[in-house]
Amino acid sequence: MRNAKTHDTVVHGMQPEDTPELRALYEGFEKESLIPLWTQLGDLMPMHPKPKAVPYVWKWNRLLPLAKASGDLVPVGRGGERRAIGLANPGLAPNAYISPTLWAAIQYLGPKETAPEHRHAQNAFRFVVEGEGVWTVVNGDPVRMSRGDLLLTPGWHFHGHHNDTDNPMAWLDGLDIPFSQQMDVGFFEFGADRVTDYATPEFSRGERLWAHPGLRPLSGLQNTVSSPLAAFRWVHTDQALTEQLALEDEGHPATVAPGHAAIRYTNPTTGGDVMPTIRCEFHRLREGAQTVARNEVGSSVFQVFDGQGAVVLGGERTTLEKGDMFVAPSWVSWSLEAESQFDLFRFSDAPIIERLDFMRTYVEG
Amino acid sequence: MRNAKTHDTVVHGMQPEDTPELRALYEGFEKESLIPLWTQLGDLMPMHPKPKAVPYVWKWNRLLPLAKASGDLVPVGRGGERRAIGLANPGLAPNAYISPTLWAAIQYLGPKETAPEHRHAQNAFRFVVEGEGVWTVVNGDPVRMSRGDLLLTPGWHFHGHHNDTDNPMAWLDGLDIPFSQQMDVGFFEFGADRVTDYATPEFSRGERLWAHPGLRPLSGLQNTVSSPLAAFRWVHTDQALTEQLALEDEGHPATVAPGHAAIRYTNPTTGGDVMPTIRCEFHRLREGAQTVARNEVGSSVFQVFDGQGAVVLGGERTTLEKGDMFVAPSWVSWSLEAESQFDLFRFSDAPIIERLDFMRTYVEG
Amino acid sequence: MRNAKTHDTVVHGMQPEDTPELRALYEGFEKESLIPLWTQLGDLMPMHPKPKAVPYVWKWNRLLPLAKASGDLVPVGRGGERRAIGLANPGLAPNAYISPTLWAAIQYLGPKETAPEHRHAQNAFRFVVEGEGVWTVVNGDPVRMSRGDLLLTPGWHFHGHHNDTDNPMAWLDGLDIPFSQQMDVGFFEFGADRVTDYATPEFSRGERLWAHPGLRPLSGLQNTVSSPLAAFRWVHTDQALTEQLALEDEGHPATVAPGHAAIRYTNPTTGGDVMPTIRCEFHRLREGAQTVARNEVGSSVFQVFDGQGAVVLGGERTTLEKGDMFVAPSWVSWSLEAESQFDLFRFSDAPIIERLDFMRTYVEG
Amino acid sequence: MRNAKTHDTVVHGMQPEDTPELRALYEGFEKESLIPLWTQLGDLMPMHPKPKAVPYVWKWNRLLPLAKASGDLVPVGRGGERRAIGLANPGLAPNAYISPTLWAAIQYLGPKETAPEHRHAQNAFRFVVEGEGVWTVVNGDPVRMSRGDLLLTPGWHFHGHHNDTDNPMAWLDGLDIPFSQQMDVGFFEFGADRVTDYATPEFSRGERLWAHPGLRPLSGLQNTVSSPLAAFRWVHTDQALTEQLALEDEGHPATVAPGHAAIRYTNPTTGGDVMPTIRCEFHRLREGAQTVARNEVGSSVFQVFDGQGAVVLGGERTTLEKGDMFVAPSWVSWSLEAESQFDLFRFSDAPIIERLDFMRTYVEG
Repeated sequence: MRNAKTHDTVVHGMQPEDTPELRALYEGFEKESLIPLWTQLGDLMPMHPKPKAVPYVWKWNRLLPLAKASGDLVPVGRGGERRAIGLANPGLAPNAYISPTLWAAIQYLGPKETAPEHRHAQNAFRFVVEGEGVWTVVNGDPVRMSRGDLLLTPGWHFHGHHNDTDNPMAWLDGLDIPFSQQMDVGFFEFGADRVTDYATPEFSRGERLWAHPGLRPLSGLQNTVSSPLAAFRWVHTDQALTEQLALEDEGHPATVAPGHAAIRYTNPTTGGDVMPTIRCEFHRLREGAQTVARNEVGSSVFQVFDGQGAVVLGGERTTLEKGDMFVAPSWVSWSLEAESQFDLFRFSDAPIIERLDFMRTYVEG
Repeated sequence: MRNAKTHDTVVHGMQPEDTPELRALYEGFEKESLIPLWTQLGDLMPMHPKPKAVPYVWKWNRLLPLAKASGDLVPVGRGGERRAIGLANPGLAPNAYISPTLWAAIQYLGPKETAPEHRHAQNAFRFVVEGEGVWTVVNGDPVRMSRGDLLLTPGWHFHGHHNDTDNPMAWLDGLDIPFSQQMDVGFFEFGADRVTDYATPEFSRGERLWAHPGLRPLSGLQNTVSSPLAAFRWVHTDQALTEQLALEDEGHPATVAPGHAAIRYTNPTTGGDVMPTIRCEFHRLREGAQTVARNEVGSSVFQVFDGQGAVVLGGERTTLEKGDMFVAPSWVSWSLEAESQFDLFRFSDAPIIERLDFMRTYVEG
Repeated sequence: MRNAKTHDTVVHGMQPEDTPELRALYEGFEKESLIPLWTQLGDLMPMHPKPKAVPYVWKWNRLLPLAKASGDLVPVGRGGERRAIGLANPGLAPNAYISPTLWAAIQYLGPKETAPEHRHAQNAFRFVVEGEGVWTVVNGDPVRMSRGDLLLTPGWHFHGHHNDTDNPMAWLDGLDIPFSQQMDVGFFEFGADRVTDYATPEFSRGERLWAHPGLRPLSGLQNTVSSPLAAFRWVHTDQALTEQLALEDEGHPATVAPGHAAIRYTNPTTGGDVMPTIRCEFHRLREGAQTVARNEVGSSVFQVFDGQGAVVLGGERTTLEKGDMFVAPSWVSWSLEAESQFDLFRFSDAPIIERLDFMRTYVEG
Repeated sequence: MRNAKTHDTVVHGMQPEDTPELRALYEGFEKESLIPLWTQLGDLMPMHPKPKAVPYVWKWNRLLPLAKASGDLVPVGRGGERRAIGLANPGLAPNAYISPTLWAAIQYLGPKETAPEHRHAQNAFRFVVEGEGVWTVVNGDPVRMSRGDLLLTPGWHFHGHHNDTDNPMAWLDGLDIPFSQQMDVGFFEFGADRVTDYATPEFSRGERLWAHPGLRPLSGLQNTVSSPLAAFRWVHTDQALTEQLALEDEGHPATVAPGHAAIRYTNPTTGGDVMPTIRCEFHRLREGAQTVARNEVGSSVFQVFDGQGAVVLGGERTTLEKGDMFVAPSWVSWSLEAESQFDLFRFSDAPIIERLDFMRTYVEG
């Protein structure tokens, strides 16, 4: 990491003189669909990750009005499928990627609207920063969406949404679309033009089977690639974080760092991540707490759920409030500061990085 | 299994004539600590498991008075450690084994008594069929014991018990003592003569960290051999079973068989069994339901938690009521019949059998 | 896959009329670094993988002269590091990627030349279609390179090459550079400007420890991410394939399909792939044999090692001879036909696809 | 381990006075098949493993004549199945167990004799200390048995033996019979009264498919519980050990301790032990080398394959020569001393102990 000798200083070692023979050689390469390594090594194999994606912050109070305007101007329906507005990393233009692996969007559903059913190989979740009244129907199982909830729609599960109320609702969609598109792994299939079940139960069938701590149904002993529990309710998340801080107050190990409570959402059949490509976590900082600056391989997206604070992202400090989102691309350092109790939802591509053994972390100091 | 040709009919194939030379050979064997296979094959390698352990039923209304009498006559304290009365399988006398792998006992703790702390390599749990008011202190963390709760004390965790009330309390202790003793894997260490913490919190610290469905503390990302969640509360178990039957009523897959709800207690870091040697489950049958007769490798112990019914065990039917316990040794068929809603706690050595790839199941019909 | 209703036919469902308000909205999106999903769904989430990479064949007899010319014109040394000529998929221009995940190059090392040591997070291997006389020094262990051998240089292992002879040598380099570059996981460090050990042993220390079938050194009981056996010799590969075909002749199951012998190179500590991102295999077809057409998620590269035959790639047939290489991008069908005994080395990104649970296969007929 | 306060010194804490009431209580226990813990804790839960099995040495020159006499006096055939003479640990009489988990026997097969086919859930292997000329037929695949070879017959594989020569042959059989018998997991089935294939190939089909270092047939990608490679040849074992010592001589890490080379036989589909219950290893000590004394949970059996040396077993030293066998029961310390180059085969129940998380090791000094 700290090797003084970089590509920049030594890269000219293999640059031969420009001669007619060399030009003929390079023309031969081009004709045969060949490209020499020695002319582009530094870009192909940097000393550490040098992402095109840039660290970036989106402000909720500027996003939301645009989402509302979309609700007025753009119908939702078959073909476009979703009134979803992607957060496009400026470094990755013209793609609507928030990072090379992740897609993040604000989805907006007006009163009584339905987003039709489909399924795709891509893994998806919804996180609700505000609102109430939409149900996501996942493989026929209606799942209520309420503030603070995390809802999964893992790969190849049919899903649609409908708004049961007279108010619009907006939420965060997260997917592995950029990974899927670049790695050519995506499949897609249309389903019902409406949702298959307009019931509005308080709890989905998946929760009724699986949301019991440490208890596994005997009808569900087969491990699954993604979590069969597809709704993680705010009441549980909030309680888990509250207890961690209370235990810390009582002098017991519980938090991940002083003043910093955090949980990871998991697949109860394995204890691992909820989906093969996306990690989801929730972090709570006490007022005044701050995290150590970290560099990590892979990219993370945060959304402020509550409270006030700031992020120092690649050395630049930005204040944050409810709904604000930011992305930390690979190996860009980030740290958080809490001005009040500060709650943040986080998702990342860490399962990709870890499963392929590319994870490294550098912690300052 | 159904091979007509058994050891009994062919075993004489290798029995040589009794001659002086043969006798000399057999004396030579004895002198050199040798035993020929051909004189004992049928016993060593039966056609299917032929356990010395017998199927057996213990009636709660006969156990409990003896436990109470022990409370009057036998002090609890260092050395004996526990006022625990082992259910001794008649086929395994003179050992206090309920099966070749499992130990089951009624432990009885009088008003204000303390059972001192110790730890051992053996894995243990407590299941509470009745009562309230005792706390188990596990590695310094006081865990309330109440009706319907499952409490773990995994191998090499210090633990003691104290009764905070003016009433005695009795519960079921389950351990892998017979396995440990026969396989020579046990270690033991004394701890405090009292318990290290007489606090009586409603929830243990382990629960406060871990009993949130699907949520894993970031301070607990290392997988553990045994469940870090060491208290499974009745309210959750009851709700999980109630939901399974309700889902069945609504026409959805949820139960393990019609009218038969069941959960397995799991280690949230892996989704697997709570301890390396002991599986714990809870089963609920609707009134009138019955299970198919099953033969399984390995042994299981059941305790009726509520309701009325019967077990057919190795072909013999016994009626059961609250607190009654029975053991199904390896390959002895068992089935349950429910006269009312019928709730049973079950524990078994299935993790041993499965991890060593010896599991087989035979289901009738 | 065969859904008649495609994005193309229904994609206009969400295209609103072009109004000043809509234009203002779209300008607002642009200003805030947002891109709506409904304008680009079909491209982002195709019905099945639609790779930009194209199926493509490179002919050895056109590559080799260019490699030789490079040997004359381009010095090898620090900075450029390797005289390696990348096979650049025309669909992925201007990148030198053979597929979105994989990099393949011909490396050429002249008499007595040295390619200096470095290490990188990217995983690499060499496969030798022809020649002798170069040693790769991996973490200080010199590994002979000979025709038919597969040599690994897993992520973050120092490695350099030196040619001990008076003849040049060319071979195939395979790496996960495109994956690493796009996903931002790469690290790089320069090592010695020469190789650290110019010894030319017949067998590397890694082989002497690990190349004994089924035998694991007690000093190597820790599982490793990549194979500690880093040289797979042709004599073993050839014998394994010969035996499979002989067993088939004798009427026993051994081949993967009639007339089709194949082995996968594995990590002996796990039985899994040799490196976390790259699968390596060797295939042998009997004269006249052909494989069924397959579509697979992920990309594969083949090099003909010996014999004559053809590939049908995305419906187009190309004849192949020794040294020829081709790439089958994701979900492009491929099949092989053997005119003589036909030997091919194959590498692919299947470990990436499988570990992230995106693998699907479609076999014709 | 070193806790001064042992059960012996404190066990009397819970012994109540002998009164008529107490006697009545104990009679009640007996009538109800109950046994109190407090009268037997020290035996049930010792401070560390206190095996009934004793450390013991069997001398080959005393075993072999008895095996030969058996060959004259006892026919081999259906019913008894094998002319196998079990090494019976004196501490485990009257059972023919060498340890609580393991069975070891000398099997003797006369000229042209056949031991009929059968299969059982128990896992078995053969190790050949001397001789040649017998084939074991495993699921129809004839496997040559020669000096230094390890041959597997994993659970539920049919197997029989036949001697193709005019000379008798004796070898070591190892099984998990005691574990199976005590844990009630055994099944047994008779097969052909002869072996199903009298061919005498040099290499079995399993070897032809699997005995290629690091190469896995594509027809064998499914992981298996036991090793599909069922013959481990002396030539490979010897070479692996020779290379380890040569590497040590050259100054490289390779041996498990100075002068101590060792390999573990593994399942190539997983890199783990060859069978779920039995670990097999081979150890070679240089002349003059000795191992540190170790206590381990679980039991091990050694057979001297070549050379001269000694074992210090539970503090007692015994000299050893070719063919001699000894058992180290759980937590009994053992160390080896080599007077010449000293080769030993070892098998143990470590997979049982490790999979159930009971392993501990104590190394002196």
